[in-house]
Amino acid sequence: MVHGIERPLDLLNSAKGKEILVQLKSGKQLVGTLLAFDIHINVVLDSAKEVENGEQTRSYGLTFLRGDTIIFISPSAVKE
Amino acid sequence: MVHGIERPLDLLNSAKGKEILVQLKSGKQLVGTLLAFDIHINVVLDSAKEVENGEQTRSYGLTFLRGDTIIFISPSAVKE
Amino acid sequence: MVHGIERPLDLLNSAKGKEILVQLKSGKQLVGTLLAFDIHINVVLDSAKEVENGEQTRSYGLTFLRGDTIIFISPSAVKE
Amino acid sequence: MVHGIERPLDLLNSAKGKEILVQLKSGKQLVGTLLAFDIHINVVLDSAKEVENGEQTRSYGLTFLRGDTIIFISPSAVKE
Amino acid sequence: MVHGIERPLDLLNSAKGKEILVQLKSGKQLVGTLLAFDIHINVVLDSAKEVENGEQTRSYGLTFLRGDTIIFISPSAVKE
Amino acid sequence: MVHGIERPLDLLNSAKGKEILVQLKSGKQLVGTLLAFDIHINVVLDSAKEVENGEQTRSYGLTFLRGDTIIFISPSAVKE
Amino acid sequence: MVHGIERPLDLLNSAKGKEILVQLKSGKQLVGTLLAFDIHINVVLDSAKEVENGEQTRSYGLTFLRGDTIIFISPSAVKE
Repeated sequence: MVHGIERPLDLLNSAKGKEILVQLKSGKQLVGTLLAFDIHINVVLDSAKEVENGEQTRSYGLTFLRGDTIIFISPSAVKE
Repeated sequence: MVHGIERPLDLLNSAKGKEILVQLKSGKQLVGTLLAFDIHINVVLDSAKEVENGEQTRSYGLTFLRGDTIIFISPSAVKE
Repeated sequence: MVHGIERPLDLLNSAKGKEILVQLKSGKQLVGTLLAFDIHINVVLDSAKEVENGEQTRSYGLTFLRGDTIIFISPSAVKE
Repeated sequence: MVHGIERPLDLLNSAKGKEILVQLKSGKQLVGTLLAFDIHINVVLDSAKEVENGEQTRSYGLTFLRGDTIIFISPSAVKE
Repeated sequence: MVHGIERPLDLLNSAKGKEILVQLKSGKQLVGTLLAFDIHINVVLDSAKEVENGEQTRSYGLTFLRGDTIIFISPSAVKE
Repeated sequence: MVHGIERPLDLLNSAKGKEILVQLKSGKQLVGTLLAFDIHINVVLDSAKEVENGEQTRSYGLTFLRGDTIIFISPSAVKE
Repeated sequence: MVHGIERPLDLLNSAKGKEILVQLKSGKQLVGTLLAFDIHINVVLDSAKEVENGEQTRSYGLTFLRGDTIIFISPSAVKE
């Protein structure tokens, strides 16, 4: 599963089209399908939903997220 | 709907002329029509309105928003 | 009114000589006449006045504002 | 009074040798005579004094101020 | 154990494939296996787990961490 | 006393070898003898002492201070 | 003792292999042996220990510290 991750952005590249969990500096979490990202870690999610305490509290649909508001991104956390 | 989003800014480009929701780091949200943006994610909204708990609390009309104050931008959240 | 806004700074350019409202990250708002701005969104206001809850609380006259302290600038909010 | 302000730094240039009021992000204000500034808005004040609620609370004399700690600078506020 | 650390990133290089502890600015700690990092100190952890007061509170699996959210990284703290 | 201050760093240059007061963003103040500084306003103090409410609370001796943690530096405040 | 400190980084260079105290923006202090640093003031400490109110509260061993989380570094504070 971790084959081919030489640089950090390789993980984001392999997560395109998959569900990811995004932890924001504001304390909130978003889940959604990763459509695109750039070197600033700006990302576009499809079907973005806000999550609080494991529950989805609001839907945003297609969403552009500024990279400097992100703490971490986990492609595998959504499925656990 | 997600065709053609190769890079994050493609979503903003496709949202020009449409209503968007902007989540600010300050905790407030603005809705308005996206007129322009640049690589710093500075944006210009027309008919900008402040939203708190789903209610519009103040109108600002034409508004220039600094990109570094933005958490996320969603073109589809307004319609849900 | 929105003709000719191709890039975000076009709005500031068209607001030169007019009254604008500036929302600061500190939570305060300033109103004043926009005299000058640069690409950092540093601005100079003439007849700058601090506004709290819609009331003018203090006059500063000619004022230089650092761009990185600004959330948004609205040329039309003053008149509403 | 506002003649010749084409760019924001023009205001600081015209304020050299005059008293200015500096609003800091920390919430405090300093007044003093502007001796020098640079493009980072680092400034040197002579006879710098801290002001709280309109009263001078402490004298610092010659003072170097980092630009990134400043919200606004007003050459005219001191005299009002 | 400290042989060969000429530059700070040498420590991260020697920790590849090993368990590390990451202290975040948010106050939380993550532990996981270091797979990759870059000059921004963006890192990818495998089997990332959140730790509070020495107890693992949540598993994230493969995780991309933005470098600007990190205070320190310790490859040896996990084993103590 | 203010002769020769054309640029802000001129003040720091003229303060080398003298006692300075440094106001930190954290709210604390340090006093010490300025040994060196660079364009980031990183400074080295000798005989650095922490000051709270005008009293010296702790000695640090030779100390390297990151420039981005500084609000202001005053060479003359120490003697007043 | 202060001979040869022309630039701020000279102090860090002369402290290699010695114990240093690092004051973090988070309010915590770390002590440890300085092994390496770079121009971002990223540092590697050996035998890093967290200090609160003068007492060592936790050991981290070899530790990479991001420069932008540091307020000051003192090579001499440890011995006082």
